[in-house]
Amino acid sequence: MTRRYRMTIAYDGTAYAGWQVQPGKRTIQGEIEHALAKVTGEKCRIHASGRTDAGVHARAQVAHFDLSLTVRTDRLLTSLDAVLEADIRIGSLTRTKPDFHARYGARGKEYRYFIWNDAVVPPFLYRYRTRADRPLDVDAMRDAARRLQGKHDFAAFSANPQREVEGTVRDLDTLAVRRRGAEVVIIAHADGFLYKMVRSLAGFLMRVGEGAVPAEEATVILKSRLRTARVPTAPPEGLFLWRVSY
Amino acid sequence: MTRRYRMTIAYDGTAYAGWQVQPGKRTIQGEIEHALAKVTGEKCRIHASGRTDAGVHARAQVAHFDLSLTVRTDRLLTSLDAVLEADIRIGSLTRTKPDFHARYGARGKEYRYFIWNDAVVPPFLYRYRTRADRPLDVDAMRDAARRLQGKHDFAAFSANPQREVEGTVRDLDTLAVRRRGAEVVIIAHADGFLYKMVRSLAGFLMRVGEGAVPAEEATVILKSRLRTARVPTAPPEGLFLWRVSY
Repeated sequence: MTRRYRMTIAYDGTAYAGWQVQPGKRTIQGEIEHALAKVTGEKCRIHASGRTDAGVHARAQVAHFDLSLTVRTDRLLTSLDAVLEADIRIGSLTRTKPDFHARYGARGKEYRYFIWNDAVVPPFLYRYRTRADRPLDVDAMRDAARRLQGKHDFAAFSANPQREVEGTVRDLDTLAVRRRGAEVVIIAHADGFLYKMVRSLAGFLMRVGEGAVPAEEATVILKSRLRTARVPTAPPEGLFLWRVSY
Repeated sequence: MTRRYRMTIAYDGTAYAGWQVQPGKRTIQGEIEHALAKVTGEKCRIHASGRTDAGVHARAQVAHFDLSLTVRTDRLLTSLDAVLEADIRIGSLTRTKPDFHARYGARGKEYRYFIWNDAVVPPFLYRYRTRADRPLDVDAMRDAARRLQGKHDFAAFSANPQREVEGTVRDLDTLAVRRRGAEVVIIAHADGFLYKMVRSLAGFLMRVGEGAVPAEEATVILKSRLRTARVPTAPPEGLFLWRVSY
């Protein structure tokens, strides 16, 4: 009989080829599975709420795994943090119901995309901010964001709409833009996201903010359901998986 | 005829063997001199307010250099930032009086030492915080800090008092300890600092905070003018050169 455990994980994705295990590459999942095997002596697979791409960060990714061993979760957490590099930290670790599933049970996700709107990004932040030289018109970005918010077919904001097994309609109930000094943050919450959807939304909103595309284009692109060059994929370093709700 | 330029520099010291040029090692000074030569075609030496050790950061280091070329400082700044890695950023660059000297002209310096007082340092901060597992008694640290504040012979808090050419007396007019959540910050301002003085003060204050040494020991150690094992050197990653005044 196995027991199921649930954990939240924070990571700096800079040095990793994303979440998912890939042969010959350093990945977040690979590092944690390796640490778990080292600490417990059991090989097990961990299942996250979803993959994150190379260079993308997480403030609170959620994952589950099964062990036949009964462990003290506080000790397991401490041991894992001791084995893992400092850029991956286990935030919490608890025993959970056998039917909890980090991916299928997720009811909603929040991502935040951080832009540094200045020529110079402080050296302590460059791993976590996407630089935008030209002054961003946050009002225009908000106008475009309001047009994208809601339940829509987001095929035009997905990197690979044909491969989305659950279709391309999502309920994007929040798409907000905030400014605080040089920092512009895009906050996106939905029941789920398509592949590279947040970075596509961020890329488009940045173009709107630069004045390269009018805010009204948001409606036109959304309705077209066609991915075009008007929607660039923003770079990974600004993106954080912020929280997952169940 | 040469013209003198003054700049402020922010850097993440993690990847560098400190400020000063050393053969075969990556240093902050080396990187900036290399970038200056590349951009201006002139080899020149830059002079900082003082060295920082391997792994120590700077929020606003100040340095000067001379060029025979007359340059537009805004363009030079942009070019330097384009050539330098993202962990070294030029904050400002201006022409200055020929007798300005970044080191000899410095009237005061502020350092800040950042401690993360929790078992787990967030993965986005581990390069910039020294971890302290055990709960720190900030009141005791403040008590000790008050005893160290003022004009004293700080030989007991220097790594190499014999080699201090200007003696070992300094006017430490501020030594404050602040807590904000898990973060404990030590703020030190003086007319100058001895070699590894801030890290020695931080190492001692951390021991006091852990309850390993009573606050009153500060006075005893100071008066002894002898470096002993009671004053450990705190690790470099928590230390920032915060500002230099002229």
